[in-house]
Amino acid sequence: MLQLMKTLVVGANGKIGRIYCRIAAERGIPSRALLRDPEQRTYFESIGVETALGDLEDEFASTLEGCDRVVFTAGSGGKTGGDKTLLIDLYGAIRVIEACEATGVDHFVMVSAMRAEQPLAGPPAIRHYLVAKKLADERLRASPVAHTILRPGLLTDEPASGRIRVDVAPGSGHKISRENVALCILASFDQPSARGQTVDLLDGDEPIATLFAARDCS
Amino acid sequence: MLQLMKTLVVGANGKIGRIYCRIAAERGIPSRALLRDPEQRTYFESIGVETALGDLEDEFASTLEGCDRVVFTAGSGGKTGGDKTLLIDLYGAIRVIEACEATGVDHFVMVSAMRAEQPLAGPPAIRHYLVAKKLADERLRASPVAHTILRPGLLTDEPASGRIRVDVAPGSGHKISRENVALCILASFDQPSARGQTVDLLDGDEPIATLFAARDCS
Repeated sequence: MLQLMKTLVVGANGKIGRIYCRIAAERGIPSRALLRDPEQRTYFESIGVETALGDLEDEFASTLEGCDRVVFTAGSGGKTGGDKTLLIDLYGAIRVIEACEATGVDHFVMVSAMRAEQPLAGPPAIRHYLVAKKLADERLRASPVAHTILRPGLLTDEPASGRIRVDVAPGSGHKISRENVALCILASFDQPSARGQTVDLLDGDEPIATLFAARDCS
Repeated sequence: MLQLMKTLVVGANGKIGRIYCRIAAERGIPSRALLRDPEQRTYFESIGVETALGDLEDEFASTLEGCDRVVFTAGSGGKTGGDKTLLIDLYGAIRVIEACEATGVDHFVMVSAMRAEQPLAGPPAIRHYLVAKKLADERLRASPVAHTILRPGLLTDEPASGRIRVDVAPGSGHKISRENVALCILASFDQPSARGQTVDLLDGDEPIATLFAARDCS
């Protein structure tokens, strides 16, 4: 039986989500964009990506039907308050993970954030955001669903270089282009050794194609 | 060996915390008030309660030394944003639970909130708060530390009636006085059958003294 791999993109209308959907469509990789607002459909129709309407603060579980992969790149963004960080970035993520557990999703890729593991060491303005990402990551790690956690640094709109680094030692830079992050999501789904891994991501010199292959899976 | 039971009160300077400390002092039950600001000491000195300085967003673990009981009634309050709800009500609670696990605290009483288990069914303005309480409660339930979770309804400044109800069916009222909540915290520590229980709390007709004794412990 031919298995069709379709990926539900949660947060599809965000910057990384839109880039991911475009690149996936260019490569013929099936995606479904989870959208909250019907007016967001135009872009996805223009790039040939299927859409489904749902709301992380309400109902969305039916949009998982027929999907065996999920990427979570939803974020309430900097324009809303900490209440939405709690409701979307954290509780939205938990509810999506629970729905994936209920429906038997095969692989979940989480777009987290660099240094999420130590929220109180982060800049005061984003500490609450780092707490949300940390707790969502921990919930995913405790799940039986296979998962990969990507933790990019400061996001830029530069075009993809196709090359990254996972060494976040001080002095190694702290930026990564969103296009590179989208390519790393695709690599996560492609490479069996990506399962169970948490990796920091910065622009660098390592080809994305060898991101997980080159890493110790322990 | 005589075992001295001392309770660390986290959120001591909040309304419930201050009432709890006063009643405990009147009854000769040892407490230590965890305070963030030295200026908050005056009240506790006036009622004869020991204080310790610590900050849930920074260091506080040393304030647990010599305490075998903890009550968590810290809340960022309505005046701050959702970022503080994440940092205090949720992550502060998690860090206190972790510290209790590390130091072998015997009993943890959490002051949660009615209907925290279904945050998205709550009023929109407090949904993020209910998420924080739900996730903190879940973390406590997963802990090896013995615990009691109290979930009061809408808090009032009425004097204690000494009588409550745990039936939150619609139409049964939705308020409880903070003094009654403080008495329920004391009852939680007193009654062995309180361990492992989660109870909703409203003003009612049931004597607080029989709150846990009368309930099924399953």
